[in-house]
Amino acid sequence: MTQSISIFDTTLRDGTQGEGISLTAEDKLKIALRLDALGIHYIEGGNPGSNSKDIEFFKRARELNLNAKLTAFGSTRRKNSSCEQDGNLRNLIESGAKAATLVGKTWDFHVHTALQTTLDENLAMIGESIAFLKRHGLEAIFDSEHFFDGYKANPAYALAALTRAREAGADWIVLCDTNGGTLPSEIAEIVSGVTAQVNAPIGIHTHNDCELAVANTLAAVAAGARQIQGTINGYGERCGNANLCSIIPTLQLKLGYPVVSDEQLRSLTSVARYVGEIANVMLPVNQPYVGTAAFAHKGGIHVSAILKDSKTYEHISPDLVGNKQRVLVSELAGQSNILSKAQEMGLDVTTDSAKAKGVIERIKQLEHEGYQFEGADASLELLLREAYTDLVDVFSVESFKILVEKSKAGTQTEAIVKLNVGGQQVYTAAEGNGPVNALDNALRKALSQYFPGIREIHLSDYKVRVLDEKETTAAKVRVLIESTDFKDSWSTVGVSSNVIEASWEALIDSIRYALLGMAQSDFAPEAPREALGLVNH
Amino acid sequence: MTQSISIFDTTLRDGTQGEGISLTAEDKLKIALRLDALGIHYIEGGNPGSNSKDIEFFKRARELNLNAKLTAFGSTRRKNSSCEQDGNLRNLIESGAKAATLVGKTWDFHVHTALQTTLDENLAMIGESIAFLKRHGLEAIFDSEHFFDGYKANPAYALAALTRAREAGADWIVLCDTNGGTLPSEIAEIVSGVTAQVNAPIGIHTHNDCELAVANTLAAVAAGARQIQGTINGYGERCGNANLCSIIPTLQLKLGYPVVSDEQLRSLTSVARYVGEIANVMLPVNQPYVGTAAFAHKGGIHVSAILKDSKTYEHISPDLVGNKQRVLVSELAGQSNILSKAQEMGLDVTTDSAKAKGVIERIKQLEHEGYQFEGADASLELLLREAYTDLVDVFSVESFKILVEKSKAGTQTEAIVKLNVGGQQVYTAAEGNGPVNALDNALRKALSQYFPGIREIHLSDYKVRVLDEKETTAAKVRVLIESTDFKDSWSTVGVSSNVIEASWEALIDSIRYALLGMAQSDFAPEAPREALGLVNH
Repeated sequence: MTQSISIFDTTLRDGTQGEGISLTAEDKLKIALRLDALGIHYIEGGNPGSNSKDIEFFKRARELNLNAKLTAFGSTRRKNSSCEQDGNLRNLIESGAKAATLVGKTWDFHVHTALQTTLDENLAMIGESIAFLKRHGLEAIFDSEHFFDGYKANPAYALAALTRAREAGADWIVLCDTNGGTLPSEIAEIVSGVTAQVNAPIGIHTHNDCELAVANTLAAVAAGARQIQGTINGYGERCGNANLCSIIPTLQLKLGYPVVSDEQLRSLTSVARYVGEIANVMLPVNQPYVGTAAFAHKGGIHVSAILKDSKTYEHISPDLVGNKQRVLVSELAGQSNILSKAQEMGLDVTTDSAKAKGVIERIKQLEHEGYQFEGADASLELLLREAYTDLVDVFSVESFKILVEKSKAGTQTEAIVKLNVGGQQVYTAAEGNGPVNALDNALRKALSQYFPGIREIHLSDYKVRVLDEKETTAAKVRVLIESTDFKDSWSTVGVSSNVIEASWEALIDSIRYALLGMAQSDFAPEAPREALGLVNH
Repeated sequence: MTQSISIFDTTLRDGTQGEGISLTAEDKLKIALRLDALGIHYIEGGNPGSNSKDIEFFKRARELNLNAKLTAFGSTRRKNSSCEQDGNLRNLIESGAKAATLVGKTWDFHVHTALQTTLDENLAMIGESIAFLKRHGLEAIFDSEHFFDGYKANPAYALAALTRAREAGADWIVLCDTNGGTLPSEIAEIVSGVTAQVNAPIGIHTHNDCELAVANTLAAVAAGARQIQGTINGYGERCGNANLCSIIPTLQLKLGYPVVSDEQLRSLTSVARYVGEIANVMLPVNQPYVGTAAFAHKGGIHVSAILKDSKTYEHISPDLVGNKQRVLVSELAGQSNILSKAQEMGLDVTTDSAKAKGVIERIKQLEHEGYQFEGADASLELLLREAYTDLVDVFSVESFKILVEKSKAGTQTEAIVKLNVGGQQVYTAAEGNGPVNALDNALRKALSQYFPGIREIHLSDYKVRVLDEKETTAAKVRVLIESTDFKDSWSTVGVSSNVIEASWEALIDSIRYALLGMAQSDFAPEAPREALGLVNH
């Protein structure tokens, strides 16, 4: 049996049926390019029959000249009609896609309940619709909806539906566990049965309703399936589809199937995070292979062991999928976490463990107050540098004021800040779209005359997290800010019951950290580095 | 072979090794009570040897009189020493726990690299430590760390370690896939091998680094494992542990193992969400069985089918695990979603589909601007009522002002609001911990004289989401607010580039919705329901 596996990505179609996932045509084009670069074989772009956005996508996608086969999604023709009269089917042809996925019923219960037609008419709908696609020169992929439930209820009819599709010319027969309720043992048995009885290339399409979508896909591959349908990050209806970001590395690194190139595999983490950004969904930190915590070590014993040899607590080398190892600092952490963190920063700490103990105590205290350094490396670095170097702050904040006024005329927001920069008082004001933006603007305005380099810095992410829901609007909030100067990026944290104060704290840390990194040349002549206390960092 | 399965929960120990998970002793006690009520058999409370918080937990947990066996976690004794001298082992005894889990090495590579001792000394550490626990009358559970990697590298030594533990009196031999890199097929083969060669009750402990922890646990059970170690929501080091919220219902509903009572199973969703709240981690909406989207239907075809029969797109009935079906409204939604939503609200809409089209258009427009009705049912209901009933607002906002001032003296926040309530102007001010809290206070103050019932309402959750990271502090933010009056709870949404304006919008919707629901009696006599335009809702 061939070892070669076709990866069929439906992030742009089934993926958008996940709660909170919504993609513009522009978003879909961006994602398609990244999927193509990753080496995906089929990219299902959407349902040109269902909305104009998808029609636009297919129109513009033709100009991308992808290596992947662009695939359009639709259903078998309407009951008691003809394919020629079926607008949905005609849209598939007109989409210009080289391949089309047709979903059809194979569960008799669905034929009666959902379609409300006869078993024979459903077979006719399948056969004629597939033949229609083939007549128009498309590669035809038959998605047999609810196949496993259908096979359990009426195996003869479920197989008859597959056979009808194959006889009509279907290039792939894809077995779908649409409700996600099937177990790996059942998948293995049923797929083996199908490969024995249906002479066609078989595909698998699973859902994650039992947290088994990946295992079910692997079981199907072991039983002979050679096309895998899934999505990036497992996005999809209800509990989602099979997660290609877990399936691809497992097939390639652990089962020896050549799926993509090693180079492409190393782009997996960035593709996963990119798609999450575009879809505007935060990746779970603990997502297998690609999550920020997938190779993050927190338990003290684990950390001391990985410092000796990372194989001790890592099932693969993170760089194979473009991820990296992290050591988390938290109350669970032994000194080893702090030490390795500080060593990463090039601080000489091993010699002085009394100091390390003091830092751990301080971190525990701050975490107790709601701070989180796992996601704020720059704030942690400032804290460690304060302990281990003669870090001198180059500016301090004397006061700030925020005024937000909403009336019929609209909303006005302004911030007034009073700073002390290397002995000189700076007092200035700025407007903004919101209170934090106004503060940010005022702060930059005040400091950029001393540190022109600050103009290069911008905030790349801003997150607000309520710490104690019970207290709601009076609760403490934690603000995480990510900043970048186009070369590097760093994240900082602030905590307060006042969202503005918490944001301010994280903003200040971000600037303080940026100033650490700035080269002499970034500073205006009238503010020499030494005068600003930036020595020995 | 016995069908009875013991569930061993390590949320309070391994779970807290997950990034961002941190529990106080108080949190742990609360969670232990819920786990006990769920019918968990073993509750691993922590490592009394590693920190004082866990010592306090075990002290206070004794007073809870749990049905579950409270279990303490520790390691085999230090190399080249005695159990009597081992503070960590003594802490296990002093914890007062009835059972203890001892983790020991079974992978020769780890003995050399992590422990840096001889293979024989490691066997002695295992045997003596287990015997020590038994001498002190504890039930002894041996967690064989990295067993599967160890068995693959050196099966004879891995089995020798298990045998030594069993001979010393271990009540359970638990096989751990500590690095989470093992595949279901390997688990099945190796566990079968162990059950054939080691005469002991076998347990399984898996991690999710390949997104296979649940499948690996099921494979081990099929091969004879009878204790399952996992955590609520799959919290744990790196990618997490086996998720008991997926394993328990699958074993009980699909494989026929009696794990907990039907009543206890119906509490699963609320336990999962409760633990998420305490751990202060948002549950992924698409989490199997217990997520808010686990039975949420978005695709138009799916929705029209479930309206005919929910079995068409649901693998189990949601109420078996205490979850419920939802229909999501979004651009993917056909009219069927809107119609079923409106029908849920008791609105008569089927007759007028032109209006439904109009509402869909409006919703698409708002979603395009960043609104999200999937998580804001009350705002959606207000929108539908505006379209389908003669909804009249009982108050309007003329203006508000926010002042935040931070100085050496501290931070001051005040809000001034001007409302029009049933023709009368109300102008008032209030302070707060933060701008949103101050607005909330001022709003309640202004309205409670007309609607005393408002005093019953409080906000139960407050979320802020940045919509376009690229714009950062100038970006649009979406605020989701959840409110409750102790009977019901409802959620509302606001969107603006100004976090205060967005919060204000969601606050106003929350109050508007509350007023819809309020009975006549909740209103002060001087403000009769009719006068306030609250007729026909």
